[in-house]
Amino acid sequence: MVNFIRPEIAQLLAYSSHAEAMETPSNVDKLDTNESPYDLGAEEKEKLAWQYQQLIQSNRYPDSTHRELKSAIVEYINETDPSGFVSENQISIGNGSDELIRSLLIATCVGTSASILLADPTFSMYKILAQTLGITTISIPREETKFTIQRGQADQAIAQAEASGHPVKVIFVVHPNSPTGNLLTTEEIQWLKERTEDILIVIDEAYFEFSGQSLVTELSQHPNWIILRTFSKAFRLAAHRVGYCIGDAQLIQALEKIRLPYNVPSFSQAAAIVALKQRQKLLTTVEETQKERDRLYNELVSDSRLKVWESSANFLYLRLNVSDPEQQQKHLVQTLQKQGTLLRHTANGIRITIGSPAENERTQAHLKTYLQDKF
Amino acid sequence: MVNFIRPEIAQLLAYSSHAEAMETPSNVDKLDTNESPYDLGAEEKEKLAWQYQQLIQSNRYPDSTHRELKSAIVEYINETDPSGFVSENQISIGNGSDELIRSLLIATCVGTSASILLADPTFSMYKILAQTLGITTISIPREETKFTIQRGQADQAIAQAEASGHPVKVIFVVHPNSPTGNLLTTEEIQWLKERTEDILIVIDEAYFEFSGQSLVTELSQHPNWIILRTFSKAFRLAAHRVGYCIGDAQLIQALEKIRLPYNVPSFSQAAAIVALKQRQKLLTTVEETQKERDRLYNELVSDSRLKVWESSANFLYLRLNVSDPEQQQKHLVQTLQKQGTLLRHTANGIRITIGSPAENERTQAHLKTYLQDKF
Repeated sequence: MVNFIRPEIAQLLAYSSHAEAMETPSNVDKLDTNESPYDLGAEEKEKLAWQYQQLIQSNRYPDSTHRELKSAIVEYINETDPSGFVSENQISIGNGSDELIRSLLIATCVGTSASILLADPTFSMYKILAQTLGITTISIPREETKFTIQRGQADQAIAQAEASGHPVKVIFVVHPNSPTGNLLTTEEIQWLKERTEDILIVIDEAYFEFSGQSLVTELSQHPNWIILRTFSKAFRLAAHRVGYCIGDAQLIQALEKIRLPYNVPSFSQAAAIVALKQRQKLLTTVEETQKERDRLYNELVSDSRLKVWESSANFLYLRLNVSDPEQQQKHLVQTLQKQGTLLRHTANGIRITIGSPAENERTQAHLKTYLQDKF
Repeated sequence: MVNFIRPEIAQLLAYSSHAEAMETPSNVDKLDTNESPYDLGAEEKEKLAWQYQQLIQSNRYPDSTHRELKSAIVEYINETDPSGFVSENQISIGNGSDELIRSLLIATCVGTSASILLADPTFSMYKILAQTLGITTISIPREETKFTIQRGQADQAIAQAEASGHPVKVIFVVHPNSPTGNLLTTEEIQWLKERTEDILIVIDEAYFEFSGQSLVTELSQHPNWIILRTFSKAFRLAAHRVGYCIGDAQLIQALEKIRLPYNVPSFSQAAAIVALKQRQKLLTTVEETQKERDRLYNELVSDSRLKVWESSANFLYLRLNVSDPEQQQKHLVQTLQKQGTLLRHTANGIRITIGSPAENERTQAHLKTYLQDKF
């Protein structure tokens, strides 16, 4: 390795989804990255195409202040948050939540001995981005009946980190968690409230629209809490890369300094604004996804060869009820991939995105056939 | 400031262009950020609008491998580089060059005591991004007849940094430099060649299409050199945020690990591909810009109240030939802004983007009137 590259970087693996790493048929059910199964409507796309041709100048840098989009986001948040607490100076917008996660790590830990705390299994990007920045990740396990955080172990880990000179500066939680689909419990939320204000609590609500549960009303009481949201899931805009966060104005100001000044392309800003304006229409599919998720859950939970968990998001998490699950699960995912159903093999289990009703039927049929052939 | 934010971040100023910070009329000549004065053609925009409606699924994540765009970039590079040296594994694509600069800093310096070397005045983002990451910037001056790097001072600074435990790991140069417009000289290139291979040399060719000069043929001899390019200038795609770099495959591999996996939105990738396919047409305006730049230079250079430098980019750099230039220059830029011509007051001088012929005529007229009224 050339000498100017940090040795830690040489040892990293790049993030890749299973689908890219393996050969797949061209026409597949993409149920491996928790996207919405639905494109924007023809009407929204026509409107955006028109805006691109008539209003957006491709040669001009995007609005670096995100003014119009921030205002639309605030309106959306305050619609679901009766306290009406949130204003534009409490919002920062990123090139997906990924950029916001990186900015949070830069704001708090880079170049210091501080560490971050995760409860595994959880979203993989926190650890990956921390690694690239040379930040230590401390992982504690979740218990495996409901995937709640082992709070006693977390307390120990925090004390130990402090004692060893790597104080925990950030705790990342997902609400509901990926890949396991569980919301934070009352006890977990209470535990987060009891953390010292020296620790930043990042609550990733990427799947908020599917759970209907948010901690946004708690923000005014907790300046050390920040909530992440995304347009990549329920709002159907994964292609456009827009995420946002909501938090204390001082913290937001720090993030605004750290982010790349022109981080969100003009057309992505326009797409998010159109999606917010059309939210009543676009979010009608959320109910379908919830129903489909619960239907698939009920179908699968009765199968003794599977262990399936209840989910508050747009995916289900399951494991094979066999003695050597990991090999079998890998084989299952590969077999279904060849049949045209992409699932995610992750965290000693399988994550299945809820797609359209037709996709979910195929998922169910492929799973059933596989289990019958195999066991 | 809340305790979990690093104190260094609290002291930073966010990047902002003058235009955003001051009040401006709504219909202005935007000559402050070195954009192209021309939008894509109606044909290209129609094509992209069609692609968006028919081919791009807004609900799906972008191609994280940038396959098609990388291939189009390689074709473009090899067209102007007779050695045909470059292949896809020597390209990394960013959310603008800004993201690539950040990735380079992360790959080399983050969490270490290493520093970067700049020759001022130069593009401001290197230092800003280094600051956010807690990386020390060592600045040496350029001499002020032609803005060449003071190589003796650079050698001293490098030795001093090494001795004080902050070894220089990266040198950033712009070719041609911004805001001063000068290309690297033969002597400067020779000096870069003589640097140890432990130092990464970043050659920012953002204005390559306007200068026609590239160091890409040198890359095969120098695995510690990397070239940055952008679609934001001659290719008219500032709104879309696409930059790329060309370098040694090992270094590129490191950057690919560090970057955000879905960093470039699908529509931005599509726009860059369309622009590359239509490059013969789109780049015809480069010649107009060069002629306009040289015409404006010749007009201004004869005015004894100004000191103007020759430029190989799409902008001119000048200073007022008065005893207290900074105050006057600030006043000049503010006055022209009120009249509808936005210029950039930077680095003890004024940078004027070359716009359309009509814009440039107004620039010239406003400048002339200002100088007559004032001196």
